[in-house]
Amino acid sequence: MAIVSKVKDKAEEKAAKVADPVAASMDVATQQMIARAQELGIDTVFDRAVQMKPCNIGTQGICCKNCSMGPCRLPLPKGGIEGEDTRKGLCGATANTIAARNFIRMIAGGASAHSDHGRSVAEVFMSAARKETDAYKIKDTTKLVAVAKELGVSTTVEVDGETRDRDLDEVALEVAKIAMNEWGKPEGELLYLKRAPQPLYEKWSKTGVKPRNIDREIVEIMHRTHMGVDQDYKNLIKQGTRAALADGWGGSMLATDLQDILFGTPYPLQSEANLGVMKEDHVNIVIHGHEPVLSEIIVAVSQRKDILEYAKSKGAKGIQLSGICCTANEILQRHGVPPAGTFLQQELAIITGACDAMVVDIQCIFQNLANVAKCFHTKLITTHPIAKMEQDNVLHIEFDEHHALEDAERIVKLAIDNFQNRGQEVMIPRQKATQIAGFGVESIQYHLGGTFRGTYYTLNDNIINGRIRGIAGVVGCNNARTRHNEAHIQVVKELIKNDVIVLTTGCNGIACAMEGLLTPESAMVYCGPGLREVCETVGIPPVLHLGSCVDNSRILLAATEVVKAGGLGKDICDLPAAGSAPEWMSEKAISIGHYFVASGVYTVFGVTLPTSGAPVFHNYLANELEKLYGGKWDLETDPIKHAQLMIAHIDKKRKELGIDKARDRVLMDMADRQKLEA
Amino acid sequence: MAIVSKVKDKAEEKAAKVADPVAASMDVATQQMIARAQELGIDTVFDRAVQMKPCNIGTQGICCKNCSMGPCRLPLPKGGIEGEDTRKGLCGATANTIAARNFIRMIAGGASAHSDHGRSVAEVFMSAARKETDAYKIKDTTKLVAVAKELGVSTTVEVDGETRDRDLDEVALEVAKIAMNEWGKPEGELLYLKRAPQPLYEKWSKTGVKPRNIDREIVEIMHRTHMGVDQDYKNLIKQGTRAALADGWGGSMLATDLQDILFGTPYPLQSEANLGVMKEDHVNIVIHGHEPVLSEIIVAVSQRKDILEYAKSKGAKGIQLSGICCTANEILQRHGVPPAGTFLQQELAIITGACDAMVVDIQCIFQNLANVAKCFHTKLITTHPIAKMEQDNVLHIEFDEHHALEDAERIVKLAIDNFQNRGQEVMIPRQKATQIAGFGVESIQYHLGGTFRGTYYTLNDNIINGRIRGIAGVVGCNNARTRHNEAHIQVVKELIKNDVIVLTTGCNGIACAMEGLLTPESAMVYCGPGLREVCETVGIPPVLHLGSCVDNSRILLAATEVVKAGGLGKDICDLPAAGSAPEWMSEKAISIGHYFVASGVYTVFGVTLPTSGAPVFHNYLANELEKLYGGKWDLETDPIKHAQLMIAHIDKKRKELGIDKARDRVLMDMADRQKLEA
Repeated sequence: MAIVSKVKDKAEEKAAKVADPVAASMDVATQQMIARAQELGIDTVFDRAVQMKPCNIGTQGICCKNCSMGPCRLPLPKGGIEGEDTRKGLCGATANTIAARNFIRMIAGGASAHSDHGRSVAEVFMSAARKETDAYKIKDTTKLVAVAKELGVSTTVEVDGETRDRDLDEVALEVAKIAMNEWGKPEGELLYLKRAPQPLYEKWSKTGVKPRNIDREIVEIMHRTHMGVDQDYKNLIKQGTRAALADGWGGSMLATDLQDILFGTPYPLQSEANLGVMKEDHVNIVIHGHEPVLSEIIVAVSQRKDILEYAKSKGAKGIQLSGICCTANEILQRHGVPPAGTFLQQELAIITGACDAMVVDIQCIFQNLANVAKCFHTKLITTHPIAKMEQDNVLHIEFDEHHALEDAERIVKLAIDNFQNRGQEVMIPRQKATQIAGFGVESIQYHLGGTFRGTYYTLNDNIINGRIRGIAGVVGCNNARTRHNEAHIQVVKELIKNDVIVLTTGCNGIACAMEGLLTPESAMVYCGPGLREVCETVGIPPVLHLGSCVDNSRILLAATEVVKAGGLGKDICDLPAAGSAPEWMSEKAISIGHYFVASGVYTVFGVTLPTSGAPVFHNYLANELEKLYGGKWDLETDPIKHAQLMIAHIDKKRKELGIDKARDRVLMDMADRQKLEA
Repeated sequence: MAIVSKVKDKAEEKAAKVADPVAASMDVATQQMIARAQELGIDTVFDRAVQMKPCNIGTQGICCKNCSMGPCRLPLPKGGIEGEDTRKGLCGATANTIAARNFIRMIAGGASAHSDHGRSVAEVFMSAARKETDAYKIKDTTKLVAVAKELGVSTTVEVDGETRDRDLDEVALEVAKIAMNEWGKPEGELLYLKRAPQPLYEKWSKTGVKPRNIDREIVEIMHRTHMGVDQDYKNLIKQGTRAALADGWGGSMLATDLQDILFGTPYPLQSEANLGVMKEDHVNIVIHGHEPVLSEIIVAVSQRKDILEYAKSKGAKGIQLSGICCTANEILQRHGVPPAGTFLQQELAIITGACDAMVVDIQCIFQNLANVAKCFHTKLITTHPIAKMEQDNVLHIEFDEHHALEDAERIVKLAIDNFQNRGQEVMIPRQKATQIAGFGVESIQYHLGGTFRGTYYTLNDNIINGRIRGIAGVVGCNNARTRHNEAHIQVVKELIKNDVIVLTTGCNGIACAMEGLLTPESAMVYCGPGLREVCETVGIPPVLHLGSCVDNSRILLAATEVVKAGGLGKDICDLPAAGSAPEWMSEKAISIGHYFVASGVYTVFGVTLPTSGAPVFHNYLANELEKLYGGKWDLETDPIKHAQLMIAHIDKKRKELGIDKARDRVLMDMADRQKLEA
């Protein structure tokens, strides 16, 4: 696993160590570009990962810097804790307290990122509902009506004793108002909680973790983790649960829903993935970040005839948009714009020398992009008021929904004008793969549901009869501490080989796309016989791309639909399902992982968990939480074992449901099924 | 400054180092109790401070653990940065980005603590306004009317063309509603911002830092500091400013105001301070924390005849309440309950062996209290749903405003019942001092204001004529990394010696009380001639105790009153005034420090600042912020130099106001003053 190779460097001692490209990534395009960067003397995250060791105490979750008597770095529990654990900080905080504090502050960080994103969308939605902007309009009225119902907004009106459809502008305005209130209403509880299966809602009621509003739960985490407040890891994680639920069933879910109404609900479409989607003879605009409100308009502007003419007038054959991270996923899902790569490839997109502009919004953006851009002609453009960069070569064009079109036009024209400033050093790797993306709760129903019943019945049926062994959600980031994409791909391949259908989001989705797993054809190569049969029959990939990180809320709702369709228990925790983030890196991943756990999902992370220094707290997450919510945390760094843990959990759930025998048969006749259903 | 003495310990190697009591604290009672604890083999924070070194990188603000590719620990800038600063984390985050992220996350922690406290009070206030509770009633209707006006709630009503006073129950209910909305309203800005001097409000408008609501700004900090979001220290600190203002002019100010309405606005009263206030023959209940809603009721219950009879029936002569930290200050200010000590003395109160119950609520509570309590008969009682303890000897009696009386009674009776369980090892130090506390904006106006004009005119007059050289706010915690109380006392003594009147809150207030500085008599001993004359004439101490940490909002309002009274400029930053936290420890202190800076106050901290690893960012705080708000940060660990920096700033402001000449004269006649005012 050593990803270090020693190279002699001319000048700087600290640059002596650079990454071994093959050890650093499993992706050939990435390997080529790492080598290219090293040739050019530009350091990338892969090099920095071998140059800087992570702090061993911090990694294990037992460094507390929440007051200035510290940072208190507890001793590591080498070889486990025997007898009483007497480690404590200056105030007496135990390893459990410190690790739990750090863990839920990570939830606060992650939940705030998702829900702040949701709030931004809600504000744009409000502008659209108030008709204050020309750039945004309600696009998906079906979804508007569906969401209105979930928020308790009436979609009909009584006129002279007759029930009529209510004016949709009115509905939109009321939806906007009620949605905005979810962030800060002084009383009540989150409205979307009731979308969960009833037994799950009741568990949340009983344990007292129903979020009151979105912001308050995040703020309360910050308070509880302040020096000298909550010093009981069980109570701390309880608040972590409340905030994580406010993310998954609140901020993230609202983000997804309102984006669907504004920009359209995704439906399956074809695209490509990897650095090879960039084109040498086109203006390349790479869009990176998470919030699609600006990028939606950039996509529209880039397709305009006058703009294409302008690009041609500057010597380019056209405009090639591509994406990184979740903004990529958003414009992939709705417009088929191809992702140029995952999180760890962001610097490499610039190092191609063909990136005329990189437009970033929020989250997961390397500050080092500015340093890399300085070595090329690339315009690095920050666009969000809350995400600027210190370096002076970064352009800041602040996006505002009230003049979104002008902003987008300015950015696209800047990129076009910059096309002619390219140096000689263009090197775009050839690698790219075809993918089918754009799945969602609605399209799964269409593809895998019963058209007759209009539910997830057919999916359930195939789970019950054992063709599909179970469902996995595999999501999350890359992490420079492990080989790029390797765990993503190995986990997913092991799952589909064992007939587990995979729902993917985030950088896992991009990684799978790069590997060709998001094609129906891949079922022939990688799937077990049951899943292969389903994929062939329906014509879907074995890995269904559900979108960005906030779209993990789609997985929650899909799981809820599966519960509703019947035959697989009464709660999400009854399902033969598991979650995974093989290469997680961000605080958002911890928030996501935790709302999955608190929604009943067995969730396995790779890389590391910041809990290993506090064995009692770790055990609470890994074993005790299951008694409350039916889900639990696990950590496994070996991808095959990681997938096998998920499969074992799925099999356990099949057994509990009494459908483990069905599994052996794979093909069932109607009589068998009727027996099972009885 | 070495506070280590090596002692031979029988058993455990790690306990080999214990603190030298005299080096650890300047307070004799504390020294005695540290030695006592060592005799008994009980470790205290003083010992732990010599046993564990703080992390040097974390202390300097350049450890980033906001994603799991880290923690990235940047190299220290030994001997300063020459040339370009190339240090960066895996993502490329610079020292400035990392330090700024950490700094504003501290603001988020501190602001959340204060404003969550405020919200709790607002909820109790709402219960009282709705008459859902017998325990709480509107006590101070004058303050209710004053606060209503600030919140835009009408206090009069037109009836038949006649203006009448509005029903106060109605006013209270509307105040409650509007106050509760300040935490999460979806649009608008904080209402209290307009209480600031107009030029200050305009600065906030211009720089774009007016908080939209309280919670949102804290959440946005968490989002901006998430991996890959804001990477421009100037933009990061801008959000830090917004959240800090939401604390000082929002959560804290609302906490203070609503507490005053519910529990009464403090007016000067006499009390005592230090461990010596505990009584061997009484039931000792020590109240510790920050939120006075429960302790108010405990005070009332403890004075009830039936309860006193009950105590006597158990062999006690009575009930002695005392306090630690800011709950102490709250019940001191309103009821004269004496503080038993500051933050660092909390373990020692139990080690007296005479603490029958320690009742804690939120913030600044050592988890080690549980370990110490285990060595004695002491009942350690947690009372707040968000602040429990892991250890199983801790009793949790959850407070709820709807059955506050029952809760308080149960707690007091538990303490009484526990009186007879004391061991033989009672040792209460004899040290205690008399104090006059209970000052506030209103009482300063009474004592130092002009009765004729009803403003702060007389105070201003004495500043203009130079008897009072300036005003200092000295506040904040203790920190086990410095000698207990020494910096507090030295800074304050140096200030009053130089005719600077001191407004104090928090543990500085308790430290000054322990040293006898909160008595009018101390003016004779410690003050310069000008300040001494004022104190003698008016009969006030040279150090005015304004209450708890949330009551730092009183200092903001007092400063605003001084501006309004005229003759000393048009904004807070024009005043000959400075702020200080000589022994700060908590994130709250950073939030407080920053809202003072952003309100125009030159603010000096002792101990350390988590910015020294990022010189450019530090310089921005220490020099550039002044251009925006008129205030700035400074760090000085030597108490005398610390005070001298404040005095130099005060003198600079006197010069800018043209009153530096007046200073030489001290006594002025009317003609002189008229000349100055012209």
